Amino acid sequence: MSLSPWKDKALFTPGPLTTSMTVKQAMLRDLGSRDPEFIEVVQEIRQQLVDLGGGSQEYTAILVQGSGTFGIESVLSSVLPPEGKLLVLVNGAYGKRMVKIAAVHKIQVLELAFSENTYPDPASLQKALANDPAISHVAVVHCETTTGIINPIETYGEIVKQHNRSYIVDAMSSFGAYPIDVAECGIDYLVSSANKCIEGVPGFSFVLARKSSLEAARGYAHSLSLDLLAQWDCLESDGQFRFTPPTHALLAFRQALRELEWEGGVLSRGKRYWINYDTTISAMRNMGFLPYLTKASAGISSHRSIIPTTPVLVSRISTNV
Amino acid sequence: MSLSPWKDKALFTPGPLTTSMTVKQAMLRDLGSRDPEFIEVVQEIRQQLVDLGGGSQEYTAILVQGSGTFGIESVLSSVLPPEGKLLVLVNGAYGKRMVKIAAVHKIQVLELAFSENTYPDPASLQKALANDPAISHVAVVHCETTTGIINPIETYGEIVKQHNRSYIVDAMSSFGAYPIDVAECGIDYLVSSANKCIEGVPGFSFVLARKSSLEAARGYAHSLSLDLLAQWDCLESDGQFRFTPPTHALLAFRQALRELEWEGGVLSRGKRYWINYDTTISAMRNMGFLPYLTKASAGISSHRSIIPTTPVLVSRISTNV
Repeated sequence: MSLSPWKDKALFTPGPLTTSMTVKQAMLRDLGSRDPEFIEVVQEIRQQLVDLGGGSQEYTAILVQGSGTFGIESVLSSVLPPEGKLLVLVNGAYGKRMVKIAAVHKIQVLELAFSENTYPDPASLQKALANDPAISHVAVVHCETTTGIINPIETYGEIVKQHNRSYIVDAMSSFGAYPIDVAECGIDYLVSSANKCIEGVPGFSFVLARKSSLEAARGYAHSLSLDLLAQWDCLESDGQFRFTPPTHALLAFRQALRELEWEGGVLSRGKRYWINYDTTISAMRNMGFLPYLTKASAGISSHRSIIPTTPVLVSRISTNV
Repeated sequence: MSLSPWKDKALFTPGPLTTSMTVKQAMLRDLGSRDPEFIEVVQEIRQQLVDLGGGSQEYTAILVQGSGTFGIESVLSSVLPPEGKLLVLVNGAYGKRMVKIAAVHKIQVLELAFSENTYPDPASLQKALANDPAISHVAVVHCETTTGIINPIETYGEIVKQHNRSYIVDAMSSFGAYPIDVAECGIDYLVSSANKCIEGVPGFSFVLARKSSLEAARGYAHSLSLDLLAQWDCLESDGQFRFTPPTHALLAFRQALRELEWEGGVLSRGKRYWINYDTTISAMRNMGFLPYLTKASAGISSHRSIIPTTPVLVSRISTNV
């Protein structure tokens, strides 16, 4: 039997990443979703996600079925009170998507929009929060997949906390390859996905949530499937998902978390992506492309290990293509 | 390399089913979710699902991420107009869950409840529809996993169509092992899941929908992720999911559909389940258990190939356990 008779592509963008053969092989098992062994897998994953986010015991990890957007919608539609108002810092498609989700749920929303090659201005956030006490939650994308830009979530977090609001970070394309301490950044809800930097297969997203913020959000959910608190309650009470989980994707993810550790953790993985980034950029420069982002706006200048985890958009010099 | 070093359990209930090793091996590949090859996989699956449901070109298949409940919520929260009213025929936990989803979405709902070992009385449905013109949609579970009872969806379908209402069927535990012609049954929306009788891995659900009913439901969705029409539009326009799909689960499902065909199709698979059912029931009788359902209420008497696809609940004779 040949395990890999196909010559597959090495890079997918956008979409899920490629995964190791051993991560995929972890899926060669069926596990009952209510069996003690599977419940242990889920608990191990949840604890490791909390650890990856800095390890503060004030946080919990909640697994949500579906792509990252399901995770984002789960947070937005579960934690805002009826009178709440969401401010979204937007500099790309995923910021815009949060605005759209809020609109679908009839959540009051204020969009602060910036061009895609600069990060949202902290002074604008400061001013908006000072002027509008109705804003209860602030949301931003960490690494905007649109361009690969890294937004300064620590800076925004300080401002949000000064004003005593809740802070939601979409870290889809950064968590696992970029060090994020959720407590230090003042994050209440961080959302990421199994199939990005942790290099699991697609099938679920996860939320690192401050327990006290969750507790304050009881009864606000707009949906059954995406009810973040109900999912948390179930995971806490008997260790199970409320509804049939993607058991194979979870087995793959446990293996992916182990391989992240074997690689040397978040900084080592980030370094590998940085090398990939450099290789791609220099080869594409030779082909006549120019990076859309400067290194500074990509968040690279200050920290060699802090890198965009998706290739930045490039525009071809030649105009006849 | 050993592919299966574990001695795993042979039967999970409730939860996902066991799958063949070849279905799991189909997941040993990464595919980009926007690659032409993957788009073909999705198209092949959608066409085969329509064929499995009777092949009428009035229907389309829409894949929805998440467990079966996500699929049910996607339908209920996408297709009822603001002034709509849902009648749910309830004789188990999954009927009750539909009532709960409707309540979360503030959809007007009428629950017609029956005991778990009898199927909902068609005359009650007839009367309710005659008396209440506000009821726009009727929903019922085909095989209630609670007991394994098979509800007579054809009979209800005739009544629903006489009254010109829309008809939603949860066929989670029957579709793929029980012949269902969606057009003949008058079904507008049938919902099932990858990890039940088709024997794929868990990760997504699917909806067989009458296109004209979908078209009449534009603009009603309460959610972004679970917006059934938006998902349909995207699958139709470029063949893609709106958000990163569970690529590996879809590869497994394509293989599972092939293996269903190799087994001889729906009737052959149903027959195998029937043999499993007989084996389980007779062995458990010998252990002192009695079936909770009679063969008639399990829907078995009229058709040997029409069987409950999950084991019926049994109650032990002895009372001291």
